[in-house]
Amino acid sequence: MRLSSQPLNVIIITLSRRVSLGERADAGGDAVAEAVQSAGMHIRERIVIADDYETLVATLQQISSSAKADIVLTTGGTGLSETDITPEATLAVISKRVQGLEFLMLQAGLQKTPHAALSRAVVGACGKTLIVNLPGNPRGAVENLSAILSILPHAVHVLQAEQVRDEDHSHPAKK
Amino acid sequence: MRLSSQPLNVIIITLSRRVSLGERADAGGDAVAEAVQSAGMHIRERIVIADDYETLVATLQQISSSAKADIVLTTGGTGLSETDITPEATLAVISKRVQGLEFLMLQAGLQKTPHAALSRAVVGACGKTLIVNLPGNPRGAVENLSAILSILPHAVHVLQAEQVRDEDHSHPAKK
Amino acid sequence: MRLSSQPLNVIIITLSRRVSLGERADAGGDAVAEAVQSAGMHIRERIVIADDYETLVATLQQISSSAKADIVLTTGGTGLSETDITPEATLAVISKRVQGLEFLMLQAGLQKTPHAALSRAVVGACGKTLIVNLPGNPRGAVENLSAILSILPHAVHVLQAEQVRDEDHSHPAKK
Repeated sequence: MRLSSQPLNVIIITLSRRVSLGERADAGGDAVAEAVQSAGMHIRERIVIADDYETLVATLQQISSSAKADIVLTTGGTGLSETDITPEATLAVISKRVQGLEFLMLQAGLQKTPHAALSRAVVGACGKTLIVNLPGNPRGAVENLSAILSILPHAVHVLQAEQVRDEDHSHPAKK
Repeated sequence: MRLSSQPLNVIIITLSRRVSLGERADAGGDAVAEAVQSAGMHIRERIVIADDYETLVATLQQISSSAKADIVLTTGGTGLSETDITPEATLAVISKRVQGLEFLMLQAGLQKTPHAALSRAVVGACGKTLIVNLPGNPRGAVENLSAILSILPHAVHVLQAEQVRDEDHSHPAKK
Repeated sequence: MRLSSQPLNVIIITLSRRVSLGERADAGGDAVAEAVQSAGMHIRERIVIADDYETLVATLQQISSSAKADIVLTTGGTGLSETDITPEATLAVISKRVQGLEFLMLQAGLQKTPHAALSRAVVGACGKTLIVNLPGNPRGAVENLSAILSILPHAVHVLQAEQVRDEDHSHPAKK
């Protein structure tokens, strides 16, 4: 089990054909990376892949099974276009969906623009790894992440707890 | 690709055994049709069917595969009774669910009555067609539709974009 | 069909290894029971089981098929830890999910603590029985239940209506 004093290990995956081809800078990934580091988390790796369902599924499963990261943040591919497959690939690998965190991100997005309703970002656990979809727009990605950042350490703590326990961490007493 | 200057083509499907038998006027469909026309959209067709899962699945798939409409609005069958199969039939045909639009409709409904929590309306894309479930109650249907009406043109635009693109339309800069 | 003058029959299921072993008092179940009785509903049975997916699935199916209860309230197992299988077991048995009721509970929880976003409580219908997941924390369970308590009689009424009807109960006129 991860010691709670250690910083959370984060892998950032940018979903973008053009960034993967080197045709475009990874603005979304850079913005997320900056927010992650400001929060005192450790970026273990950054990955850039095209919007390909099979590639993303395999990447997420490999990260989870190798326990390389506590959290995977994806950026991009959450919308409604044909190439937007991030939510579906995430749904294919998670065993526990966390709709409350999705809601907090949606709510934060809607405070900025009604178009945030079209982001279909999913949050869930694949093994002991928490996967969080963020939109590809740098500002949107950071806004969404900020809406749940303070809850992530506790979420990972509960997800990775190994001792047999019998409390419900999902609704702890107010601190 | 649809020209953005063209009005959106809408098909309205009323789910109701009694309306399909001619025993009752189609108040829900009429109310939705009026709202659609007021919004400058074009009603391509109105369909009335009984609350039958297989019929609705086949109807939705046929509309999508023939590209007859940009948007399908269903009215009725979103509740908890045995005959309410609209959300399940919709889930069976969509490949991308848009929970943010579902949330905007739920939120609008809850401002009127807590019973709106029992509408299980689903929104999602089947091919290049956006399917939106609305409740059967005429007032509720129009309230729900109004909550997302301004976002629908952009949603369809993103859904139907054919050029290979690499932006995330799901969270655009505020305009 | 249940007469609306009869109190709703409720079965409370506590999901907890330690309570099932007698190592711990059933604080969550007790708190839910008190709230249920205060609301004038009838507790038909209380069940305590360990956090075991197969056991919970079988228990829920048996209650539904025997029509022993109008409502099943579960407490516990809604979080992110390995033993938290209540939402997944519930999803496996329901045919109609009621996300609006889930949202009302989430919203109530978030007013107390952002950690409520980690409760993954599901609400849905299994046959004619409405299943509601509540967190295991006694205070959280009662808060969540209180957020939807006034809507439950109407939800059960619609769910159990046997006459062929043609109204949409999901969005009735304000009363």
